[in-house]
Amino acid sequence: MKQAIVVRTDLGMGTGKLAAQVAHASLSAYEDTGRKARKAWKGEGQKKVVLKAAGESQIFELADRAEREGLPHAVIRDAGHTQLDPGTVTTLAVGPGEESIVDKVTGDLSLY
Amino acid sequence: MKQAIVVRTDLGMGTGKLAAQVAHASLSAYEDTGRKARKAWKGEGQKKVVLKAAGESQIFELADRAEREGLPHAVIRDAGHTQLDPGTVTTLAVGPGEESIVDKVTGDLSLY
Repeated sequence: MKQAIVVRTDLGMGTGKLAAQVAHASLSAYEDTGRKARKAWKGEGQKKVVLKAAGESQIFELADRAEREGLPHAVIRDAGHTQLDPGTVTTLAVGPGEESIVDKVTGDLSLY
Repeated sequence: MKQAIVVRTDLGMGTGKLAAQVAHASLSAYEDTGRKARKAWKGEGQKKVVLKAAGESQIFELADRAEREGLPHAVIRDAGHTQLDPGTVTTLAVGPGEESIVDKVTGDLSLY
């Protein structure tokens, strides 16, 4: 089991901002996950990978793919208090889910 | 309501690694939080701040303080598959809780 969190590299987010957006995505997709998958993922140490996306359109394409694979997922928009315009899409979390299915969606992306 | 996630700056973690550890801490402390506080925090947009700690001893001091304030908290140790030695303490999440109480614990730290 793993969860993949995909981050836009084109926004120039600072490290703390980026980490907060990743955590936001992770928690939101987790909340969208069934009890059995949650438990299995946590039992294995809640494996997470953080990956790079080029921009907004890629985030939406990946979210569509996650939807078609039946994986829990969450697209995060920034509230815009700092650094970014309100509503800017920053991150996508996919899973937790079976590694092989998560890889169908995010397997081609580079590690952040 | 907010959650503060405190990161060691002395480990030289890469951005993706750091973000994954922050997400891990955030979710672990969230799971340790009562239903009412969870709901209130999410209703307000799950505010998170990512802060800097100098090293391991500061993480443990802050965790002790969170314990005394009755705040949910989680100290994260890395599994050590990459970059760090197994068991290395990387992050601490405090809250979600009332902002004024979280600030009693982490209010003196700098934003990451």
